[in-house]
Amino acid sequence: MSEHSEAPLVPRYSGSEFSEETLADRRQWVEAQCDSKLELVGKSAIPAGSLRGNIENPIGEVRVPVGVAGPLHVRGEHATGIYYVPLATTEGALVRSYERGATLITRSGGAQVRVLHDENQISPVFSFATVEEAVDFCRSVETEGELWEGIRSAAESTTRHGKLLGIDPKIVGRDVELTLRFRTGDAHGMNMISRAAEVACRWLKEHSAATGYLIFSGLSSEKRPSARALHGTKGKHVVAGIEVPSRACRLYLHATPEEIRDLWQRTVVGNVMANAIGYCGHYANGLTALFIACGQDVANVANSAVGMTQFEVTPEGHLHASVTLPSLTVATVGGGVNLGTSRECLELLGCHGTGKVLKFAEIAAAIVLSGELSFAAAIASGELSDAHESYGRNRPEEREQ
Amino acid sequence: MSEHSEAPLVPRYSGSEFSEETLADRRQWVEAQCDSKLELVGKSAIPAGSLRGNIENPIGEVRVPVGVAGPLHVRGEHATGIYYVPLATTEGALVRSYERGATLITRSGGAQVRVLHDENQISPVFSFATVEEAVDFCRSVETEGELWEGIRSAAESTTRHGKLLGIDPKIVGRDVELTLRFRTGDAHGMNMISRAAEVACRWLKEHSAATGYLIFSGLSSEKRPSARALHGTKGKHVVAGIEVPSRACRLYLHATPEEIRDLWQRTVVGNVMANAIGYCGHYANGLTALFIACGQDVANVANSAVGMTQFEVTPEGHLHASVTLPSLTVATVGGGVNLGTSRECLELLGCHGTGKVLKFAEIAAAIVLSGELSFAAAIASGELSDAHESYGRNRPEEREQ
Amino acid sequence: MSEHSEAPLVPRYSGSEFSEETLADRRQWVEAQCDSKLELVGKSAIPAGSLRGNIENPIGEVRVPVGVAGPLHVRGEHATGIYYVPLATTEGALVRSYERGATLITRSGGAQVRVLHDENQISPVFSFATVEEAVDFCRSVETEGELWEGIRSAAESTTRHGKLLGIDPKIVGRDVELTLRFRTGDAHGMNMISRAAEVACRWLKEHSAATGYLIFSGLSSEKRPSARALHGTKGKHVVAGIEVPSRACRLYLHATPEEIRDLWQRTVVGNVMANAIGYCGHYANGLTALFIACGQDVANVANSAVGMTQFEVTPEGHLHASVTLPSLTVATVGGGVNLGTSRECLELLGCHGTGKVLKFAEIAAAIVLSGELSFAAAIASGELSDAHESYGRNRPEEREQ
Amino acid sequence: MSEHSEAPLVPRYSGSEFSEETLADRRQWVEAQCDSKLELVGKSAIPAGSLRGNIENPIGEVRVPVGVAGPLHVRGEHATGIYYVPLATTEGALVRSYERGATLITRSGGAQVRVLHDENQISPVFSFATVEEAVDFCRSVETEGELWEGIRSAAESTTRHGKLLGIDPKIVGRDVELTLRFRTGDAHGMNMISRAAEVACRWLKEHSAATGYLIFSGLSSEKRPSARALHGTKGKHVVAGIEVPSRACRLYLHATPEEIRDLWQRTVVGNVMANAIGYCGHYANGLTALFIACGQDVANVANSAVGMTQFEVTPEGHLHASVTLPSLTVATVGGGVNLGTSRECLELLGCHGTGKVLKFAEIAAAIVLSGELSFAAAIASGELSDAHESYGRNRPEEREQ
Repeated sequence: MSEHSEAPLVPRYSGSEFSEETLADRRQWVEAQCDSKLELVGKSAIPAGSLRGNIENPIGEVRVPVGVAGPLHVRGEHATGIYYVPLATTEGALVRSYERGATLITRSGGAQVRVLHDENQISPVFSFATVEEAVDFCRSVETEGELWEGIRSAAESTTRHGKLLGIDPKIVGRDVELTLRFRTGDAHGMNMISRAAEVACRWLKEHSAATGYLIFSGLSSEKRPSARALHGTKGKHVVAGIEVPSRACRLYLHATPEEIRDLWQRTVVGNVMANAIGYCGHYANGLTALFIACGQDVANVANSAVGMTQFEVTPEGHLHASVTLPSLTVATVGGGVNLGTSRECLELLGCHGTGKVLKFAEIAAAIVLSGELSFAAAIASGELSDAHESYGRNRPEEREQ
Repeated sequence: MSEHSEAPLVPRYSGSEFSEETLADRRQWVEAQCDSKLELVGKSAIPAGSLRGNIENPIGEVRVPVGVAGPLHVRGEHATGIYYVPLATTEGALVRSYERGATLITRSGGAQVRVLHDENQISPVFSFATVEEAVDFCRSVETEGELWEGIRSAAESTTRHGKLLGIDPKIVGRDVELTLRFRTGDAHGMNMISRAAEVACRWLKEHSAATGYLIFSGLSSEKRPSARALHGTKGKHVVAGIEVPSRACRLYLHATPEEIRDLWQRTVVGNVMANAIGYCGHYANGLTALFIACGQDVANVANSAVGMTQFEVTPEGHLHASVTLPSLTVATVGGGVNLGTSRECLELLGCHGTGKVLKFAEIAAAIVLSGELSFAAAIASGELSDAHESYGRNRPEEREQ
Repeated sequence: MSEHSEAPLVPRYSGSEFSEETLADRRQWVEAQCDSKLELVGKSAIPAGSLRGNIENPIGEVRVPVGVAGPLHVRGEHATGIYYVPLATTEGALVRSYERGATLITRSGGAQVRVLHDENQISPVFSFATVEEAVDFCRSVETEGELWEGIRSAAESTTRHGKLLGIDPKIVGRDVELTLRFRTGDAHGMNMISRAAEVACRWLKEHSAATGYLIFSGLSSEKRPSARALHGTKGKHVVAGIEVPSRACRLYLHATPEEIRDLWQRTVVGNVMANAIGYCGHYANGLTALFIACGQDVANVANSAVGMTQFEVTPEGHLHASVTLPSLTVATVGGGVNLGTSRECLELLGCHGTGKVLKFAEIAAAIVLSGELSFAAAIASGELSDAHESYGRNRPEEREQ
Repeated sequence: MSEHSEAPLVPRYSGSEFSEETLADRRQWVEAQCDSKLELVGKSAIPAGSLRGNIENPIGEVRVPVGVAGPLHVRGEHATGIYYVPLATTEGALVRSYERGATLITRSGGAQVRVLHDENQISPVFSFATVEEAVDFCRSVETEGELWEGIRSAAESTTRHGKLLGIDPKIVGRDVELTLRFRTGDAHGMNMISRAAEVACRWLKEHSAATGYLIFSGLSSEKRPSARALHGTKGKHVVAGIEVPSRACRLYLHATPEEIRDLWQRTVVGNVMANAIGYCGHYANGLTALFIACGQDVANVANSAVGMTQFEVTPEGHLHASVTLPSLTVATVGGGVNLGTSRECLELLGCHGTGKVLKFAEIAAAIVLSGELSFAAAIASGELSDAHESYGRNRPEEREQ
């Protein structure tokens, strides 16, 4: 065993973990350990006290530049009007790309957006001694009887806001993966439904033949990409579409509707050959930038960026573009949404606080649609690396630095 | 057409896009449009002039709290020693979870880490008039002859650092998706290889029967999850492993090696049923937090978080844990790594600048391994929601706010 | 245009397509065209007249050797007792492999088998002019109101046996893939539900804003492998399990329960790395041989062989093995089940005719379980190529002929 | 333990397993056990003695009706001319469907077909004590040095015909899945390469740090569907294409090229939503029918039917159709190809025996292309259930029997 085994733990400050002094002290301790400086990191703006519940061992803040893409005209059921969307990124050309798509959408009359479903799932797994007992359990749960009610009561006993929408058992041998589907309101909801599931599981263990359970089976695809996420497991199931007149298409995208459609056909093949989940241009770019700006749980991009983009030519020769995001995980209360800049960015969209999450989901889908239009155009028209030449890291003076 | 169609563009400031005044002016314009305030966003620390190439339409900065997880003992070929890893997040309990795993790794003698491959791919697609011509093209390219050399010369003419490692044609009907595999040094490399591919494509269009091409086919899975990413398409192919003595396993993870292995067996089934890509606990959490802290392109988490975790019991009854990350996209030069806090966080790990990217990749894999150990333990031991009770958003006083 | 463009059509025999003379005449015509002989093919046993509806342009029969694997003890809800299962194959060692597993199951007390669900799906796709109209349609269909009833009446008007179990809309942009779930009794049911869906689609086109539809979208995964098939789209959702005592495991499988479990762990990783659908040893082998013997639609192996095998060690140190087949497509009436040898093979299992399909599904699952046990053992114990040496094509005297 | 545990084994006939008397005796024994009759099964035409190596416990033969689809004009490198293809099936309308497509191909000038690669893979998995040792092993194997040569010598020592084409290590933690790629000539080759791999594995175990191995990891996707099969793991990688003049398209397919392309666009979305492997109409139908007729290992349809169909409109307004089958497993020597009717069916195509397998692969791809054209047309034109009304099980007089 080397000396390294004894390396010191990060200091604890019992009772004063979240004071300004503690942050400074911990930061200095780390600087000393690593023989390094954290000057800018130390220039915090978020009051230390407000970090409780959002992070441990805090040493300061990191900063990410934020730009705006717009005007973006959204015609949803919750978001209606013009938005200028904050995007936090260091990838040159990204904001410009979303801005182009947003402007085109606005000039074409606005994006239609709808949230079709709103639920968050968790899938514990129960073990049984035999296949027969596992099947009996499935059959009981599939009927909305006593067992169903017991699960619901137990789950909902832990939360005022969460509502159990449904229970779907999935048998695998003598195991049953039990998907619990909740409505979680404006919150992210993962903690809420974990707690609810835990209580429901304990109840079920008492009231069934189950020999044991695990709170997570992996089936519900939290923060991971899966085919299942394509059918809506985590959050808002949102669709956005726009008909772009042929003339506007050529003017803004430098490509005809037919060229965009042909690009779609060729690249959907590439995605199928890669066995990608769903098909898109670059959902992850826009969602990540929006999530960082607005204090979302950015790791949820792993499931949120799963979806399906379509480009079609209408009988009249115009372009119809749409995006479908079945597992968009967003929140307007709880988590990181109250921290200084997050709150401001959400407020810029009129999306901070209770009753705003569906509006935020609609805007998110519309900005994703913006990015798909622009990205497709960049490839179809062959201007992709040109864009990066002008705006991004490919500028002659900065190349390969 | 509604009034919204005429909504104003974000102002341009020709020649002075990146001055402090411009940022303030643009921010005020946005505040006025949205009837909202951006006070904290406006308190920028990054000099406006240094934003060029990283963002457009900048209005300020957002801040994300950063904590440290460690000590993390890494036994790699490039990273050797103890690290305290900066993680930027607002998800309570995340840093504590990675800290627990890191400490366990350190107390168990350190994680072995290796970078097996280092390459970045781009896959343009070429069209041919017939299947025969497409096959002829594949056969030519598969032989390292004239065509191969022509592609290499063209591609490498655009870059001093990028090296063409290989060319793999994939036929689909009369199309050929042509994967170009590059070594991109310490840079992210996507812009570098896009430009190289563009020149190579133009050359090929002249010197083959191809009727056209698109620079992206989607095959190489940039910023999207796919089965192909599981075989290494984007960046570093890294493996990290640790043998945890049975006693340490019980002490730190509150579970026996057999319980962790059984958890693995049960949850790998859940992931297979979800048709997830690969299998992991929560790679996305740690990678996202590390990427935000260190100025990486965070959207690349979509491909970087694809991988395979294993938990085995050794003949002696200890736990062997490993993670495999085939498409880890990281950089220590270019992009956002020079912006204030990013640079400091990279320097904390001794990973800023030229010649440091493999070291950074090794540390990234080791921190991911830390998180897998801790996450598995939390589920196996049933303490998951308890952790969130203590550290995260489930604290009684903040529940469901 | 070459002479080949004028190549003659296979002759038609209007009004007498299915007489013995016609078969002979057509066969001779083909023999002449191809300058080849079809003597054995011509020795038909199935009366020509009975081929109508099962094949066109018939020229005779092909023969496949059939062997039996048993005794197989099934403890289902429909199949209870000992079975000797007919398997038609030319792959040496296949029958011996299934026989070994069946015998082990029988000596261990019999396989528990259950059919959890029984349904066949078809998924037409409807187009709408806008995202809004597509969403409105989904919302209408998700409520069991007028539209739902209209679809059901239309669908069920075409069939006495088919029952519409449910309707699941799936939105993608402005398209809606509408899964219609039917119970099809003892028949394969694909033709039945295609016809029902066709009528339902016509009705819907009249009673909704849909601009058009296609009868197949591909979503229901008929005769193709998909993640969706893993959740049960085509036929019987069956589970079979057995606890094999440790001693019997070593005696019959030449491996300990722990070795089988470790084999499972290692090979599930291989399947995940291949991005396979589900996980199994060789479902396709047994199902194909059973389907050919029993007059099933053999192409349905593509969806039927999708599933999940598990091997676990019980707390007492025994082996628990199970198979889950979510999309097992079988029939005991209609299609090819009445043709001479098919009928005999089904009757051997007591599974020909009305009311027998669930029994047949249970036996099918149990024979698949037999094969998984034997296959795992062959790999775990390293005897795989030895088996082929003794029974199969690897016999020294026949190698590489 | 019930009485069933003692159920009798199928009798063995030491030394005379494959005589006519033994077959009869065994069949009678089974009839007695099951209280059932196997008259037609007993009317065997294949000499019992020739069954050795193809089946165990034989009791007779099953029969499947066979029809012909043609004329099919193939313009390959090995198959050139007109073929009438034998298809064994009991699914009404199947032969008619393939006949329509074949005729259209012929009238349009013939299908271009090419075999791009020809290899069969097997992927044993090696275990190591640490990640470091596993990585060292990968690095050694990736270089064509001593270890590479040792593997090759060992593998090729077991076979005259098999050639080792390459070795690809895939690391997962401390395991290495080692894909061995062979050329297997005209044989199916699975037994050949299993034996070769077994010897190579034993040699490697002696000459490396490996602690153990399993002969199958599942990575090579034998008889199972996977994303990996889409990149060519099992057999012939074949592509077939045809340009169908617009007029012929409308005449034979009752749809315009644009309608077929739109059908493609809509149904590729359905397949992506189902997370299907690749995209096709119904490869499994034609391949299964061809494989049964020609004595192929029918279970290999599970991997052979994985592929990618494309329908495009050419600039001149014609339809270009293509199919890509990356893992088509076929043989013209060994296995079941010598049994009576199989041999005749192969001979009908001029494909029996040595040197014929690439020709057979080309014809197989062309008939698959035929089926895709016809299937797409049936859906695009809305005539699908009509076809089954006329030819299949939907004929009024036989409905729902």
